[in-house]
Amino acid sequence: MKLSNIGEFGLIDRIAKREPRLPSTIIGIGDDAAVLQMTNEGKYLLITTDTLIENVHFKRKGASFFRLGQKALAANISDIAAMGGWPAHALVTVGVPKTMSVKAIDELYRGINALARKQKIDIIGGDTVASPKEIVISITLLGEVEKANLLLRSTARVGDLICVTGKFGGPAAKGYPSHYALRVTLFQEARALAKSGLATAMIDSSDGLVRSILEICKASRVGAVVYESEVPVARGASLAQALHGGEEYELVFTIPAKNIRKLKKVLGRTKVSIVGDICPRKSGVNLLDKHGRIKEIKSGGYEHFK
Amino acid sequence: MKLSNIGEFGLIDRIAKREPRLPSTIIGIGDDAAVLQMTNEGKYLLITTDTLIENVHFKRKGASFFRLGQKALAANISDIAAMGGWPAHALVTVGVPKTMSVKAIDELYRGINALARKQKIDIIGGDTVASPKEIVISITLLGEVEKANLLLRSTARVGDLICVTGKFGGPAAKGYPSHYALRVTLFQEARALAKSGLATAMIDSSDGLVRSILEICKASRVGAVVYESEVPVARGASLAQALHGGEEYELVFTIPAKNIRKLKKVLGRTKVSIVGDICPRKSGVNLLDKHGRIKEIKSGGYEHFK
Repeated sequence: MKLSNIGEFGLIDRIAKREPRLPSTIIGIGDDAAVLQMTNEGKYLLITTDTLIENVHFKRKGASFFRLGQKALAANISDIAAMGGWPAHALVTVGVPKTMSVKAIDELYRGINALARKQKIDIIGGDTVASPKEIVISITLLGEVEKANLLLRSTARVGDLICVTGKFGGPAAKGYPSHYALRVTLFQEARALAKSGLATAMIDSSDGLVRSILEICKASRVGAVVYESEVPVARGASLAQALHGGEEYELVFTIPAKNIRKLKKVLGRTKVSIVGDICPRKSGVNLLDKHGRIKEIKSGGYEHFK
Repeated sequence: MKLSNIGEFGLIDRIAKREPRLPSTIIGIGDDAAVLQMTNEGKYLLITTDTLIENVHFKRKGASFFRLGQKALAANISDIAAMGGWPAHALVTVGVPKTMSVKAIDELYRGINALARKQKIDIIGGDTVASPKEIVISITLLGEVEKANLLLRSTARVGDLICVTGKFGGPAAKGYPSHYALRVTLFQEARALAKSGLATAMIDSSDGLVRSILEICKASRVGAVVYESEVPVARGASLAQALHGGEEYELVFTIPAKNIRKLKKVLGRTKVSIVGDICPRKSGVNLLDKHGRIKEIKSGGYEHFK
């Protein structure tokens, strides 16, 4: 069945058959806007958005639309997790070429819905539009966080250690674009870390390890030294891929040295590597290589348009 | 200057130079997610999203990117207005082909920012991604409304009159895609109407007059009769364009007959036309033409994919 058989309103009807409802959702899909009851006593509202475009972020040929849907939502969950919060409400926009089958669209939404259900996310709206050539998937995710547990990029302090979860360079080594879903544990780790109060700053590593550290340093107005020998490199990946590859959706966080011993209790069996130190701003952001040579890091990570 | 000269992070830096800040914006652009302080005593949070794709919603050739940016935001403001609320925070996502000039992107954001400033909207985030061919503009807008003033589609009642602001068919007569900006008064009219408590249901007419009435009937589980002779047709437009054209961003609302006299005091000099009645569901949604013939309306309005 082709999309042209059911039309936009038919597609919306298919999508709008939502089941689980958070108590905070007053009106979901079906009006001009979604309506939420926020009980924000002591909480902040978090909002993030992430867009995937065919032939930039994924190829249609051979793609699992189920996993692609999961990936689109997972990238947003990762952003909410990196703030120390939990996801709650999502808006899903899909730009669909006429050539796309209804089955593929159903698979895409099935993937989104499966992860949404797992993470107790309510899909409350979105937009369905025609797209001349490429599939476009754009998700906006709302979340919440207790004020005390909010973890920003801009609050790293000189003397903090730079820690990362997991290993780096895997997606780059396997070749972009990758459709794998977010490790579901990351969300729990991020929440545990936020609630512990041990970390000073946090970011997700979607743009690459080095880029993530640069972002923390820029936002926090500090410098850093990254120890090349301590970077956890994924099997099959090169050091360059681990440093700059991106798409790992691991956590990069800073933590005072005195808190490092307590980390194990909070993160359990999650592998954590100390990959560097936060330094004064004037020293810049530097990489100490395996031969003891230091070199300044200016930029890195996957950058569109370049 | 081409986008490839400044890159994604350069573009984000250009965009992130935001000035006005709502007190509720704790963190805007620059972290994994935006952070908002919602003071929702007696208020609901409203969320809507709208996406424009090149060659579907607009043509690049001859386009004013300034007006295109305004239109993209205006469509969202219209949705928030139709709920009875006011806009507050926006996320702006732009998918950019490498061939697009930095000047055009600057114009696009200038248009968005100009309307945002006027409506006191804080741009708190978004996404910038490469797009292989078509420009993609996707905006998510958050707003607020006092609980008592929320105006849904689903609350029209049998016996209500169906009213519309303005005239219909203009955009269709001028030929899509149109880039004109929202009439700024609409937002004030919608708010005035919501605060007055006179209307029972409201929707914006972006998908066309008939489609809007069908949506109200479907959501409210009622029928309707639309009087063809009472439909305000824009200069140069045909009746069919007025009924089905869409993109007018006028208000379509229902109101008990006893409230109609009070409307003038609330809406002032805004032209309001009574175009029909709400009927029991079993009678369906019907059009009474100029010759006194009645015909059932099944569907209508601009529909993607068909």
